[in-house]
Amino acid sequence: MSQETQKTWGGRFSEAPSQIAQEFNASWSFDKRLALVDIQGSLAHAAMLAQQGILTLEEEAQIRQGLLAVQQEILQGSFQWREELEDVHMNIEARLIELVGPVGGKLHTARSRNDQVATDLRLWVRGELTSLLDELKALRKVLVQEAEKHLEPPLVLPGYTHLQRAMPVLLSHWFLAYYEMISRDAGRLQDALHRLNESPLGAAALAGTGFPIDRHATAQALGFTRPMRNSMDAVASRDFVLEVLAALAIGQITLSRLAEEIVLYTTFEFGFAELPDAFSTGSSIMPQKKNADHAELIRGKAGRVLGSFVTLATLTKGLPLTYNKDLQEDKEPLFDAVDTYRASVKLLAAMLPGLTWKPEPMRKAAESGFSLATELADYLAERGLPFREAHHAVGRLVRYCAEHGKELRDLSLSELQGFHPLFGEDALPLTRLETAIHRRRSHGGTAPEAVREALRQARLEVEGSNGMGEALERDEHN
Amino acid sequence: MSQETQKTWGGRFSEAPSQIAQEFNASWSFDKRLALVDIQGSLAHAAMLAQQGILTLEEEAQIRQGLLAVQQEILQGSFQWREELEDVHMNIEARLIELVGPVGGKLHTARSRNDQVATDLRLWVRGELTSLLDELKALRKVLVQEAEKHLEPPLVLPGYTHLQRAMPVLLSHWFLAYYEMISRDAGRLQDALHRLNESPLGAAALAGTGFPIDRHATAQALGFTRPMRNSMDAVASRDFVLEVLAALAIGQITLSRLAEEIVLYTTFEFGFAELPDAFSTGSSIMPQKKNADHAELIRGKAGRVLGSFVTLATLTKGLPLTYNKDLQEDKEPLFDAVDTYRASVKLLAAMLPGLTWKPEPMRKAAESGFSLATELADYLAERGLPFREAHHAVGRLVRYCAEHGKELRDLSLSELQGFHPLFGEDALPLTRLETAIHRRRSHGGTAPEAVREALRQARLEVEGSNGMGEALERDEHN
Amino acid sequence: MSQETQKTWGGRFSEAPSQIAQEFNASWSFDKRLALVDIQGSLAHAAMLAQQGILTLEEEAQIRQGLLAVQQEILQGSFQWREELEDVHMNIEARLIELVGPVGGKLHTARSRNDQVATDLRLWVRGELTSLLDELKALRKVLVQEAEKHLEPPLVLPGYTHLQRAMPVLLSHWFLAYYEMISRDAGRLQDALHRLNESPLGAAALAGTGFPIDRHATAQALGFTRPMRNSMDAVASRDFVLEVLAALAIGQITLSRLAEEIVLYTTFEFGFAELPDAFSTGSSIMPQKKNADHAELIRGKAGRVLGSFVTLATLTKGLPLTYNKDLQEDKEPLFDAVDTYRASVKLLAAMLPGLTWKPEPMRKAAESGFSLATELADYLAERGLPFREAHHAVGRLVRYCAEHGKELRDLSLSELQGFHPLFGEDALPLTRLETAIHRRRSHGGTAPEAVREALRQARLEVEGSNGMGEALERDEHN
Amino acid sequence: MSQETQKTWGGRFSEAPSQIAQEFNASWSFDKRLALVDIQGSLAHAAMLAQQGILTLEEEAQIRQGLLAVQQEILQGSFQWREELEDVHMNIEARLIELVGPVGGKLHTARSRNDQVATDLRLWVRGELTSLLDELKALRKVLVQEAEKHLEPPLVLPGYTHLQRAMPVLLSHWFLAYYEMISRDAGRLQDALHRLNESPLGAAALAGTGFPIDRHATAQALGFTRPMRNSMDAVASRDFVLEVLAALAIGQITLSRLAEEIVLYTTFEFGFAELPDAFSTGSSIMPQKKNADHAELIRGKAGRVLGSFVTLATLTKGLPLTYNKDLQEDKEPLFDAVDTYRASVKLLAAMLPGLTWKPEPMRKAAESGFSLATELADYLAERGLPFREAHHAVGRLVRYCAEHGKELRDLSLSELQGFHPLFGEDALPLTRLETAIHRRRSHGGTAPEAVREALRQARLEVEGSNGMGEALERDEHN
Repeated sequence: MSQETQKTWGGRFSEAPSQIAQEFNASWSFDKRLALVDIQGSLAHAAMLAQQGILTLEEEAQIRQGLLAVQQEILQGSFQWREELEDVHMNIEARLIELVGPVGGKLHTARSRNDQVATDLRLWVRGELTSLLDELKALRKVLVQEAEKHLEPPLVLPGYTHLQRAMPVLLSHWFLAYYEMISRDAGRLQDALHRLNESPLGAAALAGTGFPIDRHATAQALGFTRPMRNSMDAVASRDFVLEVLAALAIGQITLSRLAEEIVLYTTFEFGFAELPDAFSTGSSIMPQKKNADHAELIRGKAGRVLGSFVTLATLTKGLPLTYNKDLQEDKEPLFDAVDTYRASVKLLAAMLPGLTWKPEPMRKAAESGFSLATELADYLAERGLPFREAHHAVGRLVRYCAEHGKELRDLSLSELQGFHPLFGEDALPLTRLETAIHRRRSHGGTAPEAVREALRQARLEVEGSNGMGEALERDEHN
Repeated sequence: MSQETQKTWGGRFSEAPSQIAQEFNASWSFDKRLALVDIQGSLAHAAMLAQQGILTLEEEAQIRQGLLAVQQEILQGSFQWREELEDVHMNIEARLIELVGPVGGKLHTARSRNDQVATDLRLWVRGELTSLLDELKALRKVLVQEAEKHLEPPLVLPGYTHLQRAMPVLLSHWFLAYYEMISRDAGRLQDALHRLNESPLGAAALAGTGFPIDRHATAQALGFTRPMRNSMDAVASRDFVLEVLAALAIGQITLSRLAEEIVLYTTFEFGFAELPDAFSTGSSIMPQKKNADHAELIRGKAGRVLGSFVTLATLTKGLPLTYNKDLQEDKEPLFDAVDTYRASVKLLAAMLPGLTWKPEPMRKAAESGFSLATELADYLAERGLPFREAHHAVGRLVRYCAEHGKELRDLSLSELQGFHPLFGEDALPLTRLETAIHRRRSHGGTAPEAVREALRQARLEVEGSNGMGEALERDEHN
Repeated sequence: MSQETQKTWGGRFSEAPSQIAQEFNASWSFDKRLALVDIQGSLAHAAMLAQQGILTLEEEAQIRQGLLAVQQEILQGSFQWREELEDVHMNIEARLIELVGPVGGKLHTARSRNDQVATDLRLWVRGELTSLLDELKALRKVLVQEAEKHLEPPLVLPGYTHLQRAMPVLLSHWFLAYYEMISRDAGRLQDALHRLNESPLGAAALAGTGFPIDRHATAQALGFTRPMRNSMDAVASRDFVLEVLAALAIGQITLSRLAEEIVLYTTFEFGFAELPDAFSTGSSIMPQKKNADHAELIRGKAGRVLGSFVTLATLTKGLPLTYNKDLQEDKEPLFDAVDTYRASVKLLAAMLPGLTWKPEPMRKAAESGFSLATELADYLAERGLPFREAHHAVGRLVRYCAEHGKELRDLSLSELQGFHPLFGEDALPLTRLETAIHRRRSHGGTAPEAVREALRQARLEVEGSNGMGEALERDEHN
Repeated sequence: MSQETQKTWGGRFSEAPSQIAQEFNASWSFDKRLALVDIQGSLAHAAMLAQQGILTLEEEAQIRQGLLAVQQEILQGSFQWREELEDVHMNIEARLIELVGPVGGKLHTARSRNDQVATDLRLWVRGELTSLLDELKALRKVLVQEAEKHLEPPLVLPGYTHLQRAMPVLLSHWFLAYYEMISRDAGRLQDALHRLNESPLGAAALAGTGFPIDRHATAQALGFTRPMRNSMDAVASRDFVLEVLAALAIGQITLSRLAEEIVLYTTFEFGFAELPDAFSTGSSIMPQKKNADHAELIRGKAGRVLGSFVTLATLTKGLPLTYNKDLQEDKEPLFDAVDTYRASVKLLAAMLPGLTWKPEPMRKAAESGFSLATELADYLAERGLPFREAHHAVGRLVRYCAEHGKELRDLSLSELQGFHPLFGEDALPLTRLETAIHRRRSHGGTAPEAVREALRQARLEVEGSNGMGEALERDEHN
């Protein structure tokens, strides 16, 4: 086969493309990842062409057999990719024609690479997001299980603001905070999935086609909710990729916060948890090190997923309609961001249950550092002192303790009264950890009964199934 | 009042903050934009405190009157902002106490600045997004009206791929492509609005409070769908701001594409449209210039909104729970992105109807450049030639024309047949513009009847009302 | 004066710009910050025009007096800015004409706003970078002084990898690490300063001018090293702003790392340092809190400066030559980034000397956590054991200690020999902190003598003067 | 060999890492690109160890032979990479030990992976930048040659502002504008190269080492200007990678502007140039298309390189000293950005000479559109009319022409005088293209004599050699 006929657009040209130009242009090395959805799209397209009488049934059968044979080769790893064929679409079509003869060339009737690649990409993203939502549900389930595991007897650690010990919280409460955050991250992916699940197929190059095609038929066959309503939009838009990348970036940032806390809590200084050996690594020179490498990588990878969003956002800025070759660059950041987030989610789901929490250091930290001072301020406020004045009185009291090396629970009633006469005998238990925790039973608070209620709801959410059907339903929580 | 009592947290400290430190820390110069929602939140909080018996009815009435008086001062512009009070919350509270005395200090009972600012920010974003959705609806309506205006008689221009003339399309079709894109942009903002409309109020500093508050009551009073379910999440999370910033960045990128096409179409070279004088500017040295300054600014501002997203994404990467001062930096990028996108949307809605479209140059461009070559390839394919072969035959034909300075419509039947014997008499009309346009009547295509159907649906969508209620409903389109 | 004549480019237009369009376009609210450099540029331009005989001496004198009067009004704050005049250039020129009459209109001969704003921006950046380099030198001096202060007797803290204690280091060594990093950050700003210090003035709109101007004269008068060599480049390029923004972003990231360590070291858990009251703030509800707010803000602001770079980078992507209105958006991110970095640098220079370091907790942390295990591995390696085997032996030893609650210094010789027979009596002192520190006297290491040598060099560097002259010389260090 | 001994840090652990954890952590699949510089660094390290008596000459010889054998395997492609060995360093070391026995384990004496990877990365970047500067010089030479080629007879095209025709310029002038921009881009890479060319080797894990090593010797052997002065900085800092990524992003943005202009100039609408067949591609459905795919890809890839910078900037934000695993993520964005920029530079150097410029359309465009109006305004200004009044007069004249379908050169003297009495006979030639071009002979202007002078200087710059030596010298131009 000559060079001219290999290039599908070769009729127009009198020179062969230079080698450097061809390499620069080729995308098969990454877009081959779309091979299976490309075939899926082609099968639906061919079936519709036959249904509409554009192909004969015989032709459609030949093409279908050919496509299934190509699919088999790809699944078996025996498919031969050829750089000079540039992309996944041309590689598959060329092989199809090799297998079934010139009739294979009829598959591209009423279709362009522009609507073809847009269809492939939406199918691919849909598949990935669907399984990603399953993996997120698995991670959310782990968070619920961990919250449950540490609720009786309740493990307590300091809650931090500004990385200063602020108030004691239950470890279960901490796990459920991430449950909420990650559930919203899943909600964003679900919204993206809903919005993108429309079919560009049939938009052809940009203006629709004169062949009597049935776009609703292909949309339905491929599981799309409907055909996209404007052919120019269908081939020009990549906002659906941007939306997915933004959701993934936000999701990876959530994971980076959890990862940061794992790094902190497993330091010598905090000492709240120990990593399982399977999820930590050592140093080549310092044999004593037990590093939270995986958590650090998850943290660092937030930059990577954000970078992918910036890549595509900058690329699409100011692009005139409709398809421009710049858009070929949408795939690598998308693939990388999906892979990165998925691996991070799976890793955390495997790692979290292996953490060994250390009740004593956690409790000791929660008790010290004056983290119960607010109790005393609330006490005064409840007795009618304006909150700001109560706050000042307790502030002076804390300074006194800090300067004299005392903890709040060391104070006598008369010492308390030295800072405000409203303090009575019943103020003394407030400097005990349990009191502080149990008092916070407002909705969403850290008291065990409030946490138990939150846990009950979360458990309900994660115990449903999460197949494709549900992924395309709107999750009630989000 | 001494410096010590002015700083609400001053009891702890023995030195006054340095001037440079105070300036660095202060946020009132930008967060004062939250003043009205801050008062709205305080009114709801005070009413709930009274309902729960934490404040007396008398106290609540005094606080309410005071807050309304402060609100009045702010609306009238007579409120005195003081840098040493750092932020909007402290400025308002200090003024409240000046007006109503120490009882004003009771307002902060069972509340912290952490849940207060999170509440303010959600209220503010909700208000802005609601009005932004109205403005987006107005812009979408303009796009529909423009599509309608140019449908009879139909204005035709080239559709482009790679900025090369590819196929003729109706100008109405082009307008509706942007209608689709901008409608999805609105859909993303609506999803964000739904997800963020939950109440952090009552999470207090991070752990909930021991006061017997009713978080459902304040949530309801403030129009939130429910209280947030975890107090740590409530004060630590800014994913809702990230989601809004991402949606705005994607939206501004859409506008930048439209802006780019306005810049292109109003050049001498394209010459498809002329800007209204009110929306173009001249040069200080070149009197003949008529520049699409506003479109250029809209294009350029895509960078700005993207920058805002990157700012907050980078900031929140790796932040441990819960509140950290870094989060104070969430407001300026948010405010700027909302203002930028809103101004761009309003400007386009005002500018687009003023464009003068030039039918002759548009039509001439649509006809030339071999943009009807696909018709001839389709013709051959319909007669059974595999598409790839048809494509090659027509490719050679185009090269022939280009080399001989001919347009397709100049070709005789015998010339056509020189490239493929399947060409018949009925191929000749295919090189006429009208034929090509009218043939593309597949769903979403550019044929007038297909465009008319798309227009009918779009008109239905934009003719509904879009008050707050609808903004909180999911738009059927998205 | 009519609206038409107020707009310098108004002759061409038959309609007045709409209000919304005018607001969208106007830049005076931020570009007025260029007012003084704009006048500086105009004075040089007028002087050159007179020298070349394009203006008479009389005309130049009138213009000069007028410009100085405008400058006076600006410095006194009495200048009246008018939005309808759009930008700083037109505001100043209009006022000049009011003051000196029509001759003021001759100032714009052989000049365009395109080369004018490019000149203004380079002058402004040059001035800011020059003073910023002074402030960086002040911060570097503080780092040197702090390193010096804590060298005798030497304060020791753990050096961390993966936030795990790895090896003890001198606090002075830690300070000098930041000295090196910040010195390179200064070096990047200096390189940018050198590269941008060329004059665009005289490029006119884009093509140069037919007037017999002398661009070398204005370049010299304004302190530029030479006129830019290509007029299109002169007005189209903003790579100099991008370079400055990138350097500032990298610099702010360095500061964010220092800020993160300040946050960590002032936690209860690390407890290595205490913030001065003047540089920490409290909580509105938790009186015991002493938060490193300023350090947190510096950390968070890394996102902001990075966002500014992304803003301009995205904006300039794909812009055709030469000037496009998008470029008006270069100023706000630049101004904000310069202000942010400058404030952060000044704040750290003021804060660092106020930190109270706590020798006991630092030393205790440095000793524990098996951070001296490497000493024992090195000991075995020095005695001929391949390093990898030595490493494994000590790894087993550390695991033994961890499981038995021992520190390395608790081990007896026979215990050591149980892990490897090569251990001798002389291995025992290696588990002492001082030994470990003093052994690391390789160049750049943490032994006091190595640190003293590094300090000597650093002191030499920061004790030179750093006026404009030096800023424009290449710093020998970078 | 057991799993325990395969992991160099395995002594500490009682469980094997999980498969998912190992995959997540492994970096060999990308960091193997550092293999040759890793060996280069090891050779220098071993030689120094021997020189210092830490290794015997015999041991050093064995290690050297082994390393050279490993190098040979890598060059031949026969090296077996093993994922369970995680990274390039461990893969090479393990193979070394297989080849030379336990003595291979002595290579890691007085070294850590922390200083090893920092050294490798600097060596790799240095090599890449050096060859990149060569390729940039080749591209700059192409720009000079193209400028030269089109100077006699001079090709003229419109210079644009706001994409509106503003003033005619020489095509040579346009080429030289990019010459200037790309020369500065090269200057930034050179500055980065200078700054990063220091040796981290010998910093060991973070604190230096107790072995009597000679860091100056290894620095010199590896071509570094000196050892880095602080061991913590040496292993913790990646600002050198950030600086390179920023320079590459700015460089790719420059190329995106050139690419955008190629896309524009090869449209039907502009029609200034035609792409060589070897550097354009066709459409699968529209045989007439000749797309500037490569230019579009170069334009789009600006997003990609910017994304790489954002990735690493976000990653390093807020990282405490010293090495953290996050830093492993520095390599992929760096490798990708270098490859992307290099391929774009090479492609442009190959493509530009193949462009066919079309003198007639270029000239016609340059003449029309009133781009010579400034000449007339200058004429009036030269005769004493204040520039602003001259501008208004000509603005009215242009409006008159536009309304009456005239070009400036069609105007009679009496028509001119109708707009201002100062117009005389000698104003008429000003509306001719040649006059306008030739008048702009101010330094850096577009007159042939000014361009010829600029070309002379540029030619001198690119005709020097650009070997390694020169790359490390500061280029006089930048």
